[in-house]
Amino acid sequence: MKVAKPTLPKGTRDFLPEEMRKRQYIFNIIESHFKKFGFLPVETPAQENLSVLSGKYGEEGDQLMFRILNSGDFLKDISPDSLTAGYKNLLPNISEKALRYDLTVPFARMVVMHQHEINFPFKRYQIQPVWRADRPQKGRYREFYQCDADVIGSDSLLLEAELITLYFEIFSALNLKVNILLNNRKILTALSIYLGIPEQLTEFTIILDKLDKIGIAGVVEAWNAKGFPESVGKAFINLDIKSSSHLDFRNIINRFQVLFSDIPVGLEGLSELITVWELLPHFNRTLQQHVSLDFTLARGLNYYTGAILEVKSLDTEMGSIGGGGRYDNLTGLFGLPGISGMGISLGADRIYDVIEAAGKFPEHLISAVQVLLIYFDDQTLPATLKVLQELRNAGISAEIYPDQKKIGKQYEFAAKKNIPWVGLIGPSELSTQTLKVKYLPTGAEYSWDFPSFLSEINKAK
Amino acid sequence: MKVAKPTLPKGTRDFLPEEMRKRQYIFNIIESHFKKFGFLPVETPAQENLSVLSGKYGEEGDQLMFRILNSGDFLKDISPDSLTAGYKNLLPNISEKALRYDLTVPFARMVVMHQHEINFPFKRYQIQPVWRADRPQKGRYREFYQCDADVIGSDSLLLEAELITLYFEIFSALNLKVNILLNNRKILTALSIYLGIPEQLTEFTIILDKLDKIGIAGVVEAWNAKGFPESVGKAFINLDIKSSSHLDFRNIINRFQVLFSDIPVGLEGLSELITVWELLPHFNRTLQQHVSLDFTLARGLNYYTGAILEVKSLDTEMGSIGGGGRYDNLTGLFGLPGISGMGISLGADRIYDVIEAAGKFPEHLISAVQVLLIYFDDQTLPATLKVLQELRNAGISAEIYPDQKKIGKQYEFAAKKNIPWVGLIGPSELSTQTLKVKYLPTGAEYSWDFPSFLSEINKAK
Repeated sequence: MKVAKPTLPKGTRDFLPEEMRKRQYIFNIIESHFKKFGFLPVETPAQENLSVLSGKYGEEGDQLMFRILNSGDFLKDISPDSLTAGYKNLLPNISEKALRYDLTVPFARMVVMHQHEINFPFKRYQIQPVWRADRPQKGRYREFYQCDADVIGSDSLLLEAELITLYFEIFSALNLKVNILLNNRKILTALSIYLGIPEQLTEFTIILDKLDKIGIAGVVEAWNAKGFPESVGKAFINLDIKSSSHLDFRNIINRFQVLFSDIPVGLEGLSELITVWELLPHFNRTLQQHVSLDFTLARGLNYYTGAILEVKSLDTEMGSIGGGGRYDNLTGLFGLPGISGMGISLGADRIYDVIEAAGKFPEHLISAVQVLLIYFDDQTLPATLKVLQELRNAGISAEIYPDQKKIGKQYEFAAKKNIPWVGLIGPSELSTQTLKVKYLPTGAEYSWDFPSFLSEINKAK
Repeated sequence: MKVAKPTLPKGTRDFLPEEMRKRQYIFNIIESHFKKFGFLPVETPAQENLSVLSGKYGEEGDQLMFRILNSGDFLKDISPDSLTAGYKNLLPNISEKALRYDLTVPFARMVVMHQHEINFPFKRYQIQPVWRADRPQKGRYREFYQCDADVIGSDSLLLEAELITLYFEIFSALNLKVNILLNNRKILTALSIYLGIPEQLTEFTIILDKLDKIGIAGVVEAWNAKGFPESVGKAFINLDIKSSSHLDFRNIINRFQVLFSDIPVGLEGLSELITVWELLPHFNRTLQQHVSLDFTLARGLNYYTGAILEVKSLDTEMGSIGGGGRYDNLTGLFGLPGISGMGISLGADRIYDVIEAAGKFPEHLISAVQVLLIYFDDQTLPATLKVLQELRNAGISAEIYPDQKKIGKQYEFAAKKNIPWVGLIGPSELSTQTLKVKYLPTGAEYSWDFPSFLSEINKAK
C-alpha cells in the first residue's frame, strides 16, 4: 500500500482530548438544562432524502448542502443527453440524498412519520452535527454541532417564556453574558403593511435582516435596488427602530400600538410580546434585564410565524450564538398541518470559540484520568495490577504504564497527561503491602496502604 | 411550498426518546468503562478525504463508501471524453470525499497529523457513527455507531490482556454473556507455512475467515477453487482446529508447539498467546473462563499483525458484537512507521439488538422527567411557575403542561410519558401554600408543602 498524505477536508477539525474536555463541559451544561426543563432526547440519521431537504432552506441552502453520490454505477440509467446537459440537470439523477443541514427540518419530518407514537405536546432535544459547504472562516465550520430544544403541539405563549428562560439559564451556567433579542414575525408583517409593501414581505425582511452588517443606509439602498418606492426607506428611517434595552420595553410597545392601530396583525404581535414579557419574571426574577426588543430581527428563516429569538454574546464580538422562534406549520411541509411548535438552537462550536476568546473555561476541568501506576518490574506487576483493578472497581479512572521504561519517563508521562496521582510498588512496598504515592500538583510523597490511598483520592476529587 | 412525503433513506433510523433511553444506557456503560480504564475521548469529522480512505478497506470497502459529490459545478473541469468514459472513471473527478467507514483509519490519520501534540502511549476512545452502503438486513444498518478504544505507541502485551478485560467488564455490566475468541496473526502466517502456501496467506485467511458461515467443506472447496493443492485442505482437516474452551488452552498450545517446532513465527505467536493468557487472571480472577482460542479467526482486516479478538454473544445468535487486534503499522500508511497499536471496537447497534432480543434491558430505566405540574388556571399559574423553578433549581427534571386543558387530559399526558409525579396548585392549595401531589406508579395522593414534596421526590429516586 502506498503512503498517503494525512489531510483533513477544508472546514473540518479533529478534536484531541484537551478540546474534547472543553467541548464536553459545554455539552454537559446544555444537555443537563434541556433535561431539567423536561425535554427528551431524539436522534435522526446524518443522511436525509433530498425530497425531504430540498427547497426548505432557500436557494443558498440548496447550494450549500453536501450531496451523497448514489451508490454503485450512478450513471447506469442516464442518457448521453442528460449527461452533457450541465451539472444542475445531472444532479438530481446521480444524487438522491444529502447530509443534514439543520436539525429542525429532520425533526419535522420525524414528527410526521412517527405522529402516532408521539405524545403531544412533544418536548424534544437533539444534539447532533450538521454540515454546510459554507466558505470556512473564523467561527464558521463545515461540520458543527447544533443543540436544539423544541416543543411541538402547543401554541401556548408559556413556551416562549420558558425557552427564553432556558436560554438564559444555560448561558448563565456557562458564565457568559448575553443579550436575548426578541421579535415577532407579526411585527415584520405589520411593518411591511405600514410601509405600503405587504406583497414584498419576503424581500423586505431578507434585506432588513442584514441591518447589523450593512447598516441602515445599506438596507435602504438594497430596498431601492429591489424597486421599492423611496418612501419606504424614508418612512422606515423615521420609525427609528433599534434594539431596545429592557427599560424602554413599555415605551416602544406603546409607540407601536399607536402606529399599528389600524393593522390588526401588528396589534396581535405586540400583544404576544407583552404576554411573553410579563411571564418572564415568573420564571426568573431578573430575566427581563437580559431581554431586548429588536423589531428588525428576522433570522432569514421564513418558517417563523410568531416569536423570533436571537442570542448575542456580550463577552466577544462573535455575532449570534443562538436563535429560534415559533413556527405554526413546519410539519405541514410533510402533510401534517396545524401543529404549532416553538424551538431554540444553540451553536456549540461558536459558544466554544466565545468561551475560549473570553478566557472563561474553568481553570481546572477535572482530569479524566486520576491515577497512573508505575510498571516497576515483573515481580511487583501482579500486586500493581491488583491495585489497578481495585481502583477501577471503586470507580476511579486509572491506568498502568504499559512498558517497563525508566521510572522518570513514566512520571513525566503522568505530568504531561495531567494525571494527579502516581502510585508505585517496588520490592519494599511489596513486602510492606503499601504504595509509594506522589501527588503531582504539590510534589508531595506518601507511603500508604491501599485503603488510605483510595480515601485520599476521593477526598481530593 | 409543495408537500413532501416524509421518508428516510434505506437502512437508516430515527430514534425516539424510548429508544434513546436504551441507547444511552448502553453508551453510558461503555463510556464509563473506557474512562475507568484511562482512555481519553477524541472525535474526527464525518467526512474524510478519499486520499485518506481509499484502498484501506479492500475493494468491497471502496465500493461501500458513501461518497460526497464535490460542491458547486462539479463538472466544470471535466472534458466530454472523461464524462462519457463510465462511472468508475468519472468518480475521482467529481468526488473527493467520503463518509467515515470506520474509526480506525481516521484515528491513524489523526495520530500522524497530531503526532507532536500527542503524549505516547496514547489511550483514546471514540464513539461516533460510521456509514456503509451495505445491503440493509437484520442487525445491519447503513449508519451505525462504533465505540472504539485503542492504545497506540506501545507493543506491550499487557495491553492485549487489559483490552480483553475491558471487553469482559463492559459486557458483564450490560448483563450479557459472551465468549471472547482469541487468535494471533502469527498463527495464521505459521499455518500457511505449515500447509505449504506461504505466498497465498491473504487468500488463505480471507477464505478461512468464512469457516463459521460456509463450514469446513466450503472452506476447502473455496481453497481448491483458488488453485491451492488438494493437500492443503486435507492437512488442514487433520489439524482439527476448532474454537477451544478454556479447559484445553494448554493442550492446544502444546500440540501446536510441536507442529510449529520449525516455524519460528508460529512459536512466537504461541508464546504471545501464553503471555496474554497468564496475565488475564491478574486483571480478573474468572476471566480465563470467558476466553477461547480460535486459530481460524482472521476478521478480514489484514492490518492486524499480532493478537486478533472477537466477541460472540451467548445470549442470541447475533454473530460478532465486537472485534479488535494488534496492528504494528497502521500509522505507516500515513508516513509514520513503527508505532504499534492495539484496539477493540464495539458495535453499539448490534449490542442494542442483542439486549432487546434477550429481554435484558433493565425494567426501570429512569424516566427522564420526574414531575409534571398541572396548568390549573391563570390565578394559580405564578405560584405553579415558582414551584417549577424551585424543582429545576434543585436539579429535578420538571415541566408544566403548557395549555390550560382539562385536568384529566393533563394527568393522562403524564401517564403516557411515564412521569411519576404530578403536582397541582388550585385555589385551596394556593391559600394553604401546598400542592396536591399524585404519585402515578401507586396512585397515592398527598397534600404537601414544597419542601416535603422535594424531599419525597429525592427519596423515591
